[in-house]
Formats: sequence, C-alpha cells, structure tokens
Amino acid sequence: MTEEKKGEMVVTPWEVSGDIDYRKLIEQFGTKPINQNVLEKMEKHAGYLHMQLRRQIFFSHRDLDWWLNQYEQGKPVGLYTGRGPSGPVHLGHLLPWFFTKHLQDVYGAELYFQMTDDEKFLLKDDRTLDQTIGYTYENALDLIATGLDPEKTHIISDTNDIQHLYRLSLEVAKRITYSTIKSLFGLKDSDNIGIIFYPAIQSVPCFLQSARENRKVAVLIPAAIDQDPYWRMTRDISEKMGYYKPAQIHAKFLPGLGSGGKMSASMPETAIFTIDPPEVARKKIMRAFTGGQPTIKEQREKGGNPTICSIYAYYFFLFEEDDHKLLELEQDCRSGNLVCGECKARLAKIIGSFLVDFQEKREKAKDVIDDFFIKPVD
Amino acid sequence: MTEEKKGEMVVTPWEVSGDIDYRKLIEQFGTKPINQNVLEKMEKHAGYLHMQLRRQIFFSHRDLDWWLNQYEQGKPVGLYTGRGPSGPVHLGHLLPWFFTKHLQDVYGAELYFQMTDDEKFLLKDDRTLDQTIGYTYENALDLIATGLDPEKTHIISDTNDIQHLYRLSLEVAKRITYSTIKSLFGLKDSDNIGIIFYPAIQSVPCFLQSARENRKVAVLIPAAIDQDPYWRMTRDISEKMGYYKPAQIHAKFLPGLGSGGKMSASMPETAIFTIDPPEVARKKIMRAFTGGQPTIKEQREKGGNPTICSIYAYYFFLFEEDDHKLLELEQDCRSGNLVCGECKARLAKIIGSFLVDFQEKREKAKDVIDDFFIKPVD
Repeated sequence: MTEEKKGEMVVTPWEVSGDIDYRKLIEQFGTKPINQNVLEKMEKHAGYLHMQLRRQIFFSHRDLDWWLNQYEQGKPVGLYTGRGPSGPVHLGHLLPWFFTKHLQDVYGAELYFQMTDDEKFLLKDDRTLDQTIGYTYENALDLIATGLDPEKTHIISDTNDIQHLYRLSLEVAKRITYSTIKSLFGLKDSDNIGIIFYPAIQSVPCFLQSARENRKVAVLIPAAIDQDPYWRMTRDISEKMGYYKPAQIHAKFLPGLGSGGKMSASMPETAIFTIDPPEVARKKIMRAFTGGQPTIKEQREKGGNPTICSIYAYYFFLFEEDDHKLLELEQDCRSGNLVCGECKARLAKIIGSFLVDFQEKREKAKDVIDDFFIKPVD
Repeated sequence: MTEEKKGEMVVTPWEVSGDIDYRKLIEQFGTKPINQNVLEKMEKHAGYLHMQLRRQIFFSHRDLDWWLNQYEQGKPVGLYTGRGPSGPVHLGHLLPWFFTKHLQDVYGAELYFQMTDDEKFLLKDDRTLDQTIGYTYENALDLIATGLDPEKTHIISDTNDIQHLYRLSLEVAKRITYSTIKSLFGLKDSDNIGIIFYPAIQSVPCFLQSARENRKVAVLIPAAIDQDPYWRMTRDISEKMGYYKPAQIHAKFLPGLGSGGKMSASMPETAIFTIDPPEVARKKIMRAFTGGQPTIKEQREKGGNPTICSIYAYYFFLFEEDDHKLLELEQDCRSGNLVCGECKARLAKIIGSFLVDFQEKREKAKDVIDDFFIKPVD
C-alpha cells in the first residue's frame, strides 16, 4: 500500500522491504530495546537464555517487563501470535514460532494462534477463500510440528471459527473509527469494507483468553515488528474494554537467500519452505548470495564478510546454536580458512536433516490437527 | 444521520420522519408501483388478493414480476426479511410480517429472517450486545406468533449465528468499497468500522439459501422502503457473485397514534406493543389523534376526516379486513353518524382481543423457539 523506493526501509503489515535498520524501527515504532534486566529475568525463568534472545533476534518490546512481573506474581499470562495463510511456510515463519514454543514451555502459557484467512482473501483480487482456508490447515501442520502443547494451543481459522471471535470483534469495532484505521494502516476510500473492518478481527485474540476464562489475562505477542499498528490500535482500547493492554516482543526478519531483504514466499528461489525436498533446498543454498570473494584464491587471501552473507545468517538465526562454534565459523570465514562452497555444503546438510525430521513431524501432525483448533469453552 | 426539518420527508435505514409521500419515494428510490398485471397474478396464486395488496399497503417493488415468473416456471423461490432488535415489537413491525407469512403460505417459500443485533449494538453508544441479543430472542417470539412454518423459517441472530454468515459476508465485502458505502448510507470517516462493514452482513441472506442449497434461488424481500440502499448495493454485486439479484416488495409505514409519522418505539405513548396489556393499549387508543371535530355537536354536523385519522388507519391497515365494512366506517365518520369516542372504543375492543390472542401465541412460541433458528445444512 506504499510505494517502495529501492533500498528504502518499508515496514508495514503489508510490506517489508529495503535495508532494515532495527535501531531506527525502535524509534519509529516507539518501542523499547530488550535490556539486560529483562534478559536476566528470562534467563532465570528458563534456566538458560534462549538463542533468539542471546543474539537479539527478538530485539524490541512493549511492556515485556510488566508481563514478566505478572508471571512472577503468579498471575495468569497468555501468548498470542498468528499467520496470514497465503502460501506454504518457510524458515522465516518458523523462526518466531520456535521462540513461541519456548515461551509456552517456560511460562506454561495458553497460546492463541490466529490464521487470518479472511484478511488474506480480502487483500488480493485473485485469491479465493477456499485457497486461504486450505493454507490455514496446511500451515497449521507446520505450527504443530514445532512441538506445541495441544492442551495449551488454540489455533483459530478466522473464517471457520468466527463464532469464537465475532462478539468481541464487535466490541472492538464499535470503538475504532475509519479515520483511525485510515491513518494507522494507510487505507483509502477505494479499499474494500472487509479490509477496513479486519483490524477488529486481528485485535480479538488479545482479549479472547480473558473473555473465555472470565478473568484478566496478561497477553504477550511474539511477532515481527511489522504488525505493530494492530497492537497500537488494540492498546488504545484495551482498558476501555476492561482488559489489559497486550505486551509485545518483536523479532527481526530472517533474511532471504538473496542479497538483502527478508525471506519471502513471493521469491521462492530465495526461500526455504518446510515442504521443500532436501535436494531442492540444497540447490537454493548452493546458489545463495554470500559475503565471499569472487574467486577461491581471493577468498583464501582476503577472507569473506559474514555480515552481509545470507548463509552465515542461517547459522546465526537458526542452525548453529553453539555461540562458540558460531564465532569459530565467523573467524574461519574472515580469515579465509573457510570457502563459500564448503560452508554452503555444510549448511545444506544441516538443513537437509532438519527438513527430513521436520517433515516427519509435519506428517504426524495430520493425525492430531483437530486437537489444536479452538473449541468452545466448557 | 441526517438533520430533520419539521415535516420534511426523510426515509433512510436509520431515520423515517416527516410527511411521507409514497409516490415521491417510488421516484426517489427508482422502484416501480405494483401494477394490475402483478396483482392479478398474485390473486391467482393465493386464490384471493391479500388485504395489504388490495389496499396498496405494499405499494412498490423491484423485479417482483420476475420473481413471480420464476415461481410460475417451477423454479425455487425464497423470502428474506428481518428486524433490528432494539426494543419490543409493535404493530408497525407486525404489519409486513403478517404479509410475509401470507407469502410463505402461498409460495411455499423458505424464509430467512435476520435479527441484526450486531447493527443495533454498533449504532448506539449506550447499547450493549446482551441487550440487543436479548431482544433478538424476545422479538423472535412475536415473529413466531404470526404463524410461520418452523420447517421453512430460519431466524438468524447475526451475533450468535455468525458462522452461517461470515464466509458470504467476506465475499460481499471484498466487492464493496468504503466510497460506495459512504455515498449510499451517508457514513462519515468518524463512524466506527463495524457499521462500515455491517452492510455486507445485511446483504448475506440474499444469497444464503442459494449457497446452502447449492442452486440459484430467486429471493424476494418484503420490507419497508427505507432499507432500499442495502438492496441497491446488493443488486450491484449479485451477478458477480454468481447469484440472482434479490427482488423487493415495499410496504408503507403504519402510522403512530399521534398526528403524522410512523409508529415508533421511541414514542411509546403512540405505539401499541404486542406485550402491552389490553388496558394499556385501550388508554393509548382513547388518547389517540383523530380526524374528528372538537365537539360531538360539531362532529354530528360536519363529520370527521378519516384521511388524517390515526384510528381509521388502524382499521385500514390491520383491523377491518372487510372492504365493505371499512367503507361503511368511512362513510359513517364523514357523515357524522360515528363519533370518535365510539369509534375508538370499538377499535380498543378489537385490538384488546387481538392482543389477548397474540400474547397467548407468543407465550406458546417459547416452547418451540429453537426450532425456528437457523441450523447447519445437513
């Protein structure tokens, strides 16, 4: 909905492009960096500090300190995140889901997970509801394969499970004017009335657990920062509705295998999908953009640059949990000890094994998928 | 949503006021008067011409001739009407419902009846959803008491039965821009996003039977003409959605017991509610505005004027089915034979008996109310 200039940073719910400066995003969105005090608490709760916190992959927040305090005081805490089901899931989607599973494990929290098949339908002329609902169920398999607890997970298909959302969405919608939506999301009078109403639907799971349990639950939303306008809108009305403002913890975007930009399903050659056969993933990795030199000779002499390397990013974000080994890898690259072909082949092997294992879990998820979808309250 | 000038005709989905000129409404809304040809067909189908057609209480239409042709060709025909549940039902609401029941009987048609408890909640700051949903069930008792067929009637509470509507509402909403809504309904940017989306919900029952039965059903909407903007909007997108445009048949408004204006729940002293005890109704009638002279003496000499008389209107619209007796009444009034007190007392007696009988049926409706609400398709 905004015009992109080459390289210029654009981060909205509908578009993420350009060179992303996360420090600038914190300023722009008015959030807070995750400080040492918060990290120490989270380390204490988990018994260790999760890789995505250690490496500042989750880098920004709103009221995370408050949410942790609620937990420490023995008050109920919940989690909410979601997905716009418009295609197959790639590693960039899995990244915050793995962290969400970690939070569920550590905090024993209920997770409400919204599949916005209505939004995805409303946004594109040539997309049918059958398609987006189809992806809801396909994508749910990936979510379940991350190891979430069926007792504490409530996946919502907006379209098929609307009876759980509509009442609260009316309470939200009554408090939000078109003017607000227009300025927050950059909508125009020529946009359809479905997409204008939609933010009310995305707001609901911030309050859903509280409404279902008839008590105020402190909700934390782990998600990428591009969804922020929804939570700013929601926070403005939360207290009027008798609920807590939702807290947020914001993740960086997993880069694609190309040069710059986040992993995106619209550039399938630079994205690794969970359903990619290992051989397909290997080919994408072997063709990836790296920080290496044009020739092996130059690489041996001058060394590579991991800072701009998409392959290094995959070790950093997902596939080398050991900080010491990651440092070694970085040093080997910079010194010219490690050449790109070798480094890629190693990653391809790791990702290949990951995919085989994940696809097995994804297959098993088909038997239990119903257990994970939202049920009426007893 | 529009400013009313004293006496000026205003007919919108949110306001009906002033002196209503039905011929002007036909021009203004671009509908057609019901002609002799259509009346003859309907008389043939029913075996008689219903009072509300004979007296041009239903006075205007769109594509009614087409709907009747579909019926004559043995093609499936359906009915759709509804109610905004914001208070108790009065005689003005019952008027088109009695005619709808007649249509259901004659044409064997399924009736989808929408209770817009979401709309009524969204329109007023101090109204709660519990209130409007409460009125949905209260008002349903009145609807059922008109004698509808439980096998062929599907009442929908927008809020509680949203799972039957949401999918189709998304299909509608995707095709309607805010610009369209703004110009059709006079909405403003400061209006809430719920009421902007709402027309998509009101549109759905035009297609619901077709979607549920997986065939194209010709739908006729018997309702007052103030709802017309919804159907103009719906007709514009019907064919793009693969359905027929809904046909309409428009009723006049039952006058209140005051001087001019339609019967309105917001002026309870001039409205007769179905739950009024006969004694309360009698008092309202005895205080009603009539076309009579200031004194009995003058009345005997000059006669009364039934044209402007609210009491005469009740005989005309509802309580004197016999055209001959109605004419006698009119003549007795004009000649001064009949004085207002006597005429009122007679009507109070008739309405009293009606209320006793109706309230008994309304009470019995409590036992079968569930049978009348929409169920999932087998």
